[in-house]
Amino acid sequence: MDERVREHAAVLVDWSARVEAGDNVVLSVGPDAHELAVAVAEQLGERGANLLATYSSGEIQRAYLRAHDGDFDEDPAHELALAEHADVFLSLGGGRNTSATADVPGEIRQAYRKAQEGVREARYDTRWVSTVHPTRSLAQQANMAYEEYRDFAYDAILRDWEALAEEMARMKTILDEGSEVRLVSPGTNLTMSIEGRTAVNSAASVEYDSHNLPSGEVFTAPNGTDGEVTFDVPMTIQGESVRDVRLEFDDGEVVASEAAEGEAVIGDVLETDDGARRLGELGIGMNRGIDRYTDSILFDEKMGDTVHLALGRAYDACLPEGETGNESAVHVDLITDVSEESRLEVDGEVVQRNGRFRWEDGFDA
Amino acid sequence: MDERVREHAAVLVDWSARVEAGDNVVLSVGPDAHELAVAVAEQLGERGANLLATYSSGEIQRAYLRAHDGDFDEDPAHELALAEHADVFLSLGGGRNTSATADVPGEIRQAYRKAQEGVREARYDTRWVSTVHPTRSLAQQANMAYEEYRDFAYDAILRDWEALAEEMARMKTILDEGSEVRLVSPGTNLTMSIEGRTAVNSAASVEYDSHNLPSGEVFTAPNGTDGEVTFDVPMTIQGESVRDVRLEFDDGEVVASEAAEGEAVIGDVLETDDGARRLGELGIGMNRGIDRYTDSILFDEKMGDTVHLALGRAYDACLPEGETGNESAVHVDLITDVSEESRLEVDGEVVQRNGRFRWEDGFDA
Repeated sequence: MDERVREHAAVLVDWSARVEAGDNVVLSVGPDAHELAVAVAEQLGERGANLLATYSSGEIQRAYLRAHDGDFDEDPAHELALAEHADVFLSLGGGRNTSATADVPGEIRQAYRKAQEGVREARYDTRWVSTVHPTRSLAQQANMAYEEYRDFAYDAILRDWEALAEEMARMKTILDEGSEVRLVSPGTNLTMSIEGRTAVNSAASVEYDSHNLPSGEVFTAPNGTDGEVTFDVPMTIQGESVRDVRLEFDDGEVVASEAAEGEAVIGDVLETDDGARRLGELGIGMNRGIDRYTDSILFDEKMGDTVHLALGRAYDACLPEGETGNESAVHVDLITDVSEESRLEVDGEVVQRNGRFRWEDGFDA
Repeated sequence: MDERVREHAAVLVDWSARVEAGDNVVLSVGPDAHELAVAVAEQLGERGANLLATYSSGEIQRAYLRAHDGDFDEDPAHELALAEHADVFLSLGGGRNTSATADVPGEIRQAYRKAQEGVREARYDTRWVSTVHPTRSLAQQANMAYEEYRDFAYDAILRDWEALAEEMARMKTILDEGSEVRLVSPGTNLTMSIEGRTAVNSAASVEYDSHNLPSGEVFTAPNGTDGEVTFDVPMTIQGESVRDVRLEFDDGEVVASEAAEGEAVIGDVLETDDGARRLGELGIGMNRGIDRYTDSILFDEKMGDTVHLALGRAYDACLPEGETGNESAVHVDLITDVSEESRLEVDGEVVQRNGRFRWEDGFDA
């Protein structure tokens, strides 16, 4: 086993999920994430945690969903009970084909997601962390050789998370104290309110309300979004290629949408429910260990020089006690490159220009 | 996909587990049983059942158990809750190495099994069925080519189960009405009481209290076993090769044991708990679609011309209402060939001689 697989497992279990003896852990394993699962199992055994492994396969999902009539039972008792009795939920992504579910009809997919809302909420109440094992299919999606992709992935995952958390704390302070964010970039001129919202210093650990490994972003929950935005970072969403999505917002809601590719997928997303037409997240990528787009949301949205917005569900961590954020069965991230002709302003003050943060060398005030 | 994979899935879901709309199904998937899992998922979707897939990997199990100090939490709440809320539990065996857990210390293995007793009991309360996908590792264990092994496995699995159930009903009647069984064979002269016990017509369906696919055996729960028995069918138990186990019973309990190979494994089994030294099962193989030993308990114990006995846990289905059978954390089957110089008597009357049942052509009364 590549020593980096063991290091990845140790970061996941210790830094990210803070697993302790007696924790009831659900380990969700993708078909090609087997090797990482073995390394994680070893870590869990060492810590005296209790392990139950589930199997997360796009091909199984596809077969099940396509055969179903779409009238799904809400939150099946066995799935709900498992999630409700788990302390930790670790998702090890890694399939054999990132388009494995591409031919599942959108309405079936949506109906299933809606029916699983309670299960998902219960999972979000655990110390959950999503990561991926660098697989051949992810390498292919990134247009990279397998070995090259592994180097890329471990560069992003095996970082000095404590140091990055310190840098990101600066951005969190700016957002926590700010009221209005403006994002300007080619095809983008958007304002949104972040008044009273709390930013998350997403340092890849549940201790920071951060649930992705790798992470390296600061995000908050905006509202009252107005203006237009173009997402120029290419992505695959629900197994389909999506390019240059353009959304127009009025008083917080999407009023027009188009895309150079994948317009139907975006349409499906927007029609899921009311909340799917509003933003649940504004995120600022700060992981400079990620140096290129690889068509994987887990990596792309964390990259330095990018800003992302998510349609749908807001994370509770961004909301003041007792306040409800945007509710939706979906949370779909879309990314825009801010490395050129771009600026991010908080209350009229430029925080990032052409990719440089104001505390970095080369920032042009 | 080989059409037989789909047929296997249909037999499992319809004939074996009797899955209906709304059933909460746990699908336990071995790493190389993926293809069968896809076919089963399709069947479950068609029927409107609720699917949760778990991942059953010997390598993950090994990594976890070897790293653990052996002081396992009893029946972790998340595992127990999942089992308790399931209606159906389908186990699709199929790993990459049948010896994957061979170097897990026996005492760790036993401690884990003991700690999982409640989870196991909850699973036995569902409509549970165990089957295997014919994999390369199973072919290797059977000393067969992969294609040859697939033919073998599907011959055993895709049978006319209703017709076999009718034949097996004869044996069930004999055992239900009988009081004492005597088994005589080279190295074997054993008597046991079956008074008041109910035999199971194991026709590969929960409707018959039968939980294996393939099946094709009639079994009951003996007690008061006396005499000696030699198990001459070669097997792999807990990843280790076991040959010619010889047990001596006195008043129901093993008082001496030896083996040409794997004596330590048998010793570990016997030391699990008190119940591990007593028999939980007497089974008579009646599936003539299985024409050779393949070192897989699921197939070998069902083969015509064999009788098997299990150390450990008795199945409730064999016991009169309110009576408790042999209790143990283990259930380990051992098989003896009865094709030559052998006879099975019930209350002094020969039921099977040299492999022929008394209703078959060639039976020599």
